[in-house]
Amino acid sequence: METQELATRRSALVSKFGPAKIDALIVSSAPNIRYLTGFTGSNGLVLAAPSATVLFTDPRYAIQATQQTDCKVVVARGPLYPALMRAAARRRLRRLGFEKARLGYDAFEHLRELLPLGASLHGVGGMVESLRMVKSPAEIERIRRSVAVNSSAFDAALKIVQPGMKESDLAAEIEYRMRLLGAERPAFDSIVAAGARSALPHAEPGTDTLGNNRLLLIDIGATVDGYASDMTRVAFLGKPGRKIRSLYQAVLEAQLAGIDAVGPGVSAGKVDAAARRVLRAKGLDKAFVHSTGHGLGLEIHEPPRLGKGDSTALEAGMVITVEPGAYLEGFGGVRIEDTVVVTSSGCEVLTPTSKELFLL
Amino acid sequence: METQELATRRSALVSKFGPAKIDALIVSSAPNIRYLTGFTGSNGLVLAAPSATVLFTDPRYAIQATQQTDCKVVVARGPLYPALMRAAARRRLRRLGFEKARLGYDAFEHLRELLPLGASLHGVGGMVESLRMVKSPAEIERIRRSVAVNSSAFDAALKIVQPGMKESDLAAEIEYRMRLLGAERPAFDSIVAAGARSALPHAEPGTDTLGNNRLLLIDIGATVDGYASDMTRVAFLGKPGRKIRSLYQAVLEAQLAGIDAVGPGVSAGKVDAAARRVLRAKGLDKAFVHSTGHGLGLEIHEPPRLGKGDSTALEAGMVITVEPGAYLEGFGGVRIEDTVVVTSSGCEVLTPTSKELFLL
Repeated sequence: METQELATRRSALVSKFGPAKIDALIVSSAPNIRYLTGFTGSNGLVLAAPSATVLFTDPRYAIQATQQTDCKVVVARGPLYPALMRAAARRRLRRLGFEKARLGYDAFEHLRELLPLGASLHGVGGMVESLRMVKSPAEIERIRRSVAVNSSAFDAALKIVQPGMKESDLAAEIEYRMRLLGAERPAFDSIVAAGARSALPHAEPGTDTLGNNRLLLIDIGATVDGYASDMTRVAFLGKPGRKIRSLYQAVLEAQLAGIDAVGPGVSAGKVDAAARRVLRAKGLDKAFVHSTGHGLGLEIHEPPRLGKGDSTALEAGMVITVEPGAYLEGFGGVRIEDTVVVTSSGCEVLTPTSKELFLL
Repeated sequence: METQELATRRSALVSKFGPAKIDALIVSSAPNIRYLTGFTGSNGLVLAAPSATVLFTDPRYAIQATQQTDCKVVVARGPLYPALMRAAARRRLRRLGFEKARLGYDAFEHLRELLPLGASLHGVGGMVESLRMVKSPAEIERIRRSVAVNSSAFDAALKIVQPGMKESDLAAEIEYRMRLLGAERPAFDSIVAAGARSALPHAEPGTDTLGNNRLLLIDIGATVDGYASDMTRVAFLGKPGRKIRSLYQAVLEAQLAGIDAVGPGVSAGKVDAAARRVLRAKGLDKAFVHSTGHGLGLEIHEPPRLGKGDSTALEAGMVITVEPGAYLEGFGGVRIEDTVVVTSSGCEVLTPTSKELFLL
């Protein structure tokens, strides 16, 4: 990410300190640290203050940190928290915010013990996350590439699906193609679920085999240059009967209704309601056991959540999934999911993959 | 995991409640939940009490939870914490322990607000983790399979290494083979680092290519049936010069000295000291920038840590890595790592892969 964009993010963060009555924020979550500094190592801590942002890490990441960030880097030989508190004391920062949804309770206790005289700790919720909700053009470009890699891997893998293939082997083929296409890793554990197992919304791919006249649900995402994509498609091996066709049609209509509802100023809950209404009309509301979608970016699950009654207003630049589903225990399930960006006039569906029931 | 083994673990846990002065433990960490109940879903919470262990999850995992665990399952339509607190109140559990290293600060605040009248919260550290340190024969068997998958994937991938290949493509080949051999996923982001980049102990595979007369460091692990393996090997494309051969030899001697020191009753720090002593004698102590190893099991990093001065006494059944390294900035690095189980008489190196400097 360019230095200029990192600096812009840090000024946007610092402008929230006044209203929140803090002098500085201790940033402990890895994706938030990456967002503010560019650093991708697994052990880091950030002290963000109006005067400067300082990144603390250990000697394993000394070289990498200076390569990745434009911030001041402190390489601590021991634990990072004492080094951070010493820096806070030296800079006379008094009211120290911490990320209360991201910091473990014991780390909080540890911080409290280390507090300089006259300083105090203040839990803040989602301060960096609220900035991250609205993506910059450069971020949307990365998500677009992630979506393209994900869809290409899906297309390639679909060509080799054969009855008798294990769910876990198809997952391996998909993830292998993602990697060769430039993904760092899958954005989450791929879901490949055959037959009645497609009714488990979060099935782990197992040794069940893809069979003739069975549903096949594939929910996959790639991480490319740090950014996630997310897509679900359903195939059928053979000629589907009426029940499957109508189940598929119902979920597809719900998904299209959800996408249709997405736009700036619309509440997240309204998108959920639009999808849910379609399934209710088909008597499938009890079969839709999760929310309609979620934000994504540096993490696969970010705010906003598109669930019942969620009041967050969508804004241009937010990137979300729209993914209603219907699950019938013992029979099978259907979910259709795209990655979508909110635009000033409505939305753009980033996922290029066709949305028919794939017949293999 | 067999029901009998799960029950044994839960009784071992409950026997710690008296000394810790708690009536029950709120278990919030996914690997700890899996260890105690068998449940592998991403959203779960456990109330462990002498009378019963109750697993709370959401409707997405309703079917899976009842298939995986022998515990009582409560499927909550909303957030899990209120459901758990209602169950605690009904059972008149007063002194509720929580995992202070595993619970976020905001979840702690939320729990505190939900506390029934007369009940109190007590932070406990590593209670389940301390049980998990010593593996059962069934767990060691799983780790053995994970190690075998990891080494087979390495062997297969080594055969296709070619100058000009990208680091990230070799990582993709290795992970693909792991998956086909039965791994659920890599246990961590594979490290494939060529040339001078091998001096970054935690390099992310990039678009650098494997070149003639360059080092190639590969640090990989598989997750098989939930259990991790971890191995590092180093190859050289061509005929290595004297500096590389002596660097390799020094790290190899340090690793063998580390393994030699492992045994029941030995402190973790003593193993670290044994490896470090060899590197110091070669003038490489400053080049060894991390600790000698770590426990592994359901997680890739578990206690004990094999670092300077760590006093944990090793016990038969603990599974650890032994992985000294030496890193010369701008030149390259060497690390050699095995997965090792502590036995009643010393240790067994589980990793079957040969430990020479692979010449390709």
